[in-house]
Amino acid sequence: MLTYDLSKFEGPLYQRIYEAVKRDIHEGKLTSGTKLPSKRALARNLGVSAITVENAHDQLIAEGYLVARPRRGYFVAEVEVAKRPARTIERELRIEKPRRDWAFDFSSNKTESANFPFSVWAKCLRDAMTRRKNDLLETSPCAGVLELREAIARHLASFRGMAIDPDQIVVGPGAEYLYGLLVRTMGRDKIFCVENPGYKKLRKIYESFGVDCRLARVDDRGIIPEELRESGADVAHISPTRHFPTGTTTPVSRRFEILAWATETEGRYVIEDDYDSEFRMKGRPLPSMQSLDPDRVVYVNTFSKSLASTIRIGYAVLPPELIERYYKRLSFYSCAVSTFEQYALAAFIGRGYFEKHINRLRLHYSRKRARVLETVRGILPETNCRPIERDSGLAFILKLSTERSESEIKEELASQGIRIETISDYDAGDSGEYRNQFLLNYSNLDETRLEGALRALREAL
Amino acid sequence: MLTYDLSKFEGPLYQRIYEAVKRDIHEGKLTSGTKLPSKRALARNLGVSAITVENAHDQLIAEGYLVARPRRGYFVAEVEVAKRPARTIERELRIEKPRRDWAFDFSSNKTESANFPFSVWAKCLRDAMTRRKNDLLETSPCAGVLELREAIARHLASFRGMAIDPDQIVVGPGAEYLYGLLVRTMGRDKIFCVENPGYKKLRKIYESFGVDCRLARVDDRGIIPEELRESGADVAHISPTRHFPTGTTTPVSRRFEILAWATETEGRYVIEDDYDSEFRMKGRPLPSMQSLDPDRVVYVNTFSKSLASTIRIGYAVLPPELIERYYKRLSFYSCAVSTFEQYALAAFIGRGYFEKHINRLRLHYSRKRARVLETVRGILPETNCRPIERDSGLAFILKLSTERSESEIKEELASQGIRIETISDYDAGDSGEYRNQFLLNYSNLDETRLEGALRALREAL
Repeated sequence: MLTYDLSKFEGPLYQRIYEAVKRDIHEGKLTSGTKLPSKRALARNLGVSAITVENAHDQLIAEGYLVARPRRGYFVAEVEVAKRPARTIERELRIEKPRRDWAFDFSSNKTESANFPFSVWAKCLRDAMTRRKNDLLETSPCAGVLELREAIARHLASFRGMAIDPDQIVVGPGAEYLYGLLVRTMGRDKIFCVENPGYKKLRKIYESFGVDCRLARVDDRGIIPEELRESGADVAHISPTRHFPTGTTTPVSRRFEILAWATETEGRYVIEDDYDSEFRMKGRPLPSMQSLDPDRVVYVNTFSKSLASTIRIGYAVLPPELIERYYKRLSFYSCAVSTFEQYALAAFIGRGYFEKHINRLRLHYSRKRARVLETVRGILPETNCRPIERDSGLAFILKLSTERSESEIKEELASQGIRIETISDYDAGDSGEYRNQFLLNYSNLDETRLEGALRALREAL
Repeated sequence: MLTYDLSKFEGPLYQRIYEAVKRDIHEGKLTSGTKLPSKRALARNLGVSAITVENAHDQLIAEGYLVARPRRGYFVAEVEVAKRPARTIERELRIEKPRRDWAFDFSSNKTESANFPFSVWAKCLRDAMTRRKNDLLETSPCAGVLELREAIARHLASFRGMAIDPDQIVVGPGAEYLYGLLVRTMGRDKIFCVENPGYKKLRKIYESFGVDCRLARVDDRGIIPEELRESGADVAHISPTRHFPTGTTTPVSRRFEILAWATETEGRYVIEDDYDSEFRMKGRPLPSMQSLDPDRVVYVNTFSKSLASTIRIGYAVLPPELIERYYKRLSFYSCAVSTFEQYALAAFIGRGYFEKHINRLRLHYSRKRARVLETVRGILPETNCRPIERDSGLAFILKLSTERSESEIKEELASQGIRIETISDYDAGDSGEYRNQFLLNYSNLDETRLEGALRALREAL
């Protein structure tokens, strides 16, 4: 007769019986086809109620350990388990995570927490949650909720002079995600081209999608059209407003040269990566390339710099041909941004908070930039340090005179917990063209520690 | 002498001058190389201050329309623009959006707003925003914030008996996103296999990544191992807890057969899609396949059913080999889920709200299921309607007797604004095996309109 010491198991009684029978099947003590005692007999034997046994049996049946045969009783199912007990992983994971403990970081581009509008954002979220309960739980259209796309379209109209239809917009959780969507919309057979120097991540992203991604060099006017043409690319991914890391703005004549390249052959596109156009410190924002040729240019922007990089919302404005293809091919994908944050952002933009926020940030950053430049000039003598800056963006370049190699300097600083990057870090194949140009991203710079870090840099030269 | 009627333009004075000069360059009235009058002369002529002219010039220089030559003055740059004025899109977009105006939907799987814990969620969000300002703006590790991964690991330990390391978890904005990450981690050269019938979207997703995705039929025990073997697949994407749309649970013996397939050859994996394991109405949740073979099984789940489909958070538990490859190959990707919602969810799980919420939902849904079944039985006579349900999941099947075709019935209902789906809709190649099996997803069913919809269904039979 089947019996168990239930005190050796944990949990409610039915679960103990379940565990006991399962263990016996796993260990081969109860073999396939064995008939179990009747529920009543087993209950009496274990000193529990028949219901308890029934619950245990139901669980064992649901998992496939037992089968119930009407009017004949419970039998052990055909389960070949003895060889394969449940297992856990025993070895240590070998995972390399990026270093995060820098005492000072010249390259950080995260948002300063003092600059995030917590109370206004909380208000926008709270309003959405109290006033629009149903909307929040309604599945978002694949391209994002209409209210947000309308708010973005109005913002682009007034801020960038772009006349677009909200239906041309696709909202996604950050630009990286949108690049992947663009690859799938345009086709993986297209050849992409990115700027060199430039964000190395971009090329990695395209390559992770199995796309042939090539490089074209930039000069002081942006990507070089001849290089672009020679690359054999179909799609040019560029940042004409402010190139990273050099800070170059592409003048209108070069823009037209690039657009001429795009219209030479059917199926060519320009992806205009407008990642920090909000931070032109003087004058009006530059017009977008999208407004020069809305049929050939995909415009991509995010709220990473202008709101927070940790609220993952970006958007792309697609030319008619591509947006139609997107809806045809990819509209089965769910929108990957929470509706809660989509509605909060729609309100944030729509009620004018976003514009105020950007204006406040521009003022804050232009003052901070001036202070940082002053501190730099106070510590690094003009003879061996020339800042290269263009009144826009949240970073500038320090061109330093030194006999030491960039990697020696970086290593020496790293040993003191200080992180610094050079333009060469972003130059595939390292042409040497940008020797000793160090990046200073001041958006999240800790000014209280800047002097110390600059002194360490001076020592390292 | 250059002069303009500034009243014909809009905006601040400097902007009017900028627009006027730009228009003249666009229209070819000012040609490349032309010297502009001195700032002072132009200012006098237009009746504005020299600063205003300077601001206009700065903008024109920034955009590349003018060049400044020190001590010589301002000249029109080489800009070939006359042929290409700024344009907007003139034609209508041809976009087909899915119909969203159903009066009644037998197939909706969105969350009922009455079931979303608004006040608790708001509290978790608010707490995160007041107590953890800095954490919220700190870039999330690529796999998600540790606190959330730890909370998920503890939940899986207590709820699913899974012993995993939080570092095996990758958090992403929904399961669809995670499938894409898995493709890129495993390699696009792998052959995937999905269940037939099953979510058609799954195959579309794999194919959108350029992956060869095959089908294997399911029987009443889940995916058929022989079909899986014959498909030539390397990766089997299955839902053993509850297959959609048939509702089948894969018994332990079949699970071991599938795992035997996975271990036959190096590099084979099972993706265990556990999308609604929380909704087993009786007994304990079934053990996961992941716990049977943590080296071969990737476990994927989301909070779509258990919290809301519109808060896009899902996660995958990867075997050691794959998680190490993920960190090596893909850790340059940013985590695509907002840190605000990651911390809110970590608190929601960690403080026990999630467990309470699921228990409440299970009770709610099992009562609703009983009421819905009763209504069904009251309107559709037993002779031509047999409900197929298995005490789990948020949907069941109505097997109906009718001489009419499924599409006739669906069309007739659609003309009344009622949406219904059949198992055949999910059967690629439509084997006819599931004839007249209609899906009834009751999770978001409007009970006040159910009787009317069922009567319409009865009429249509």
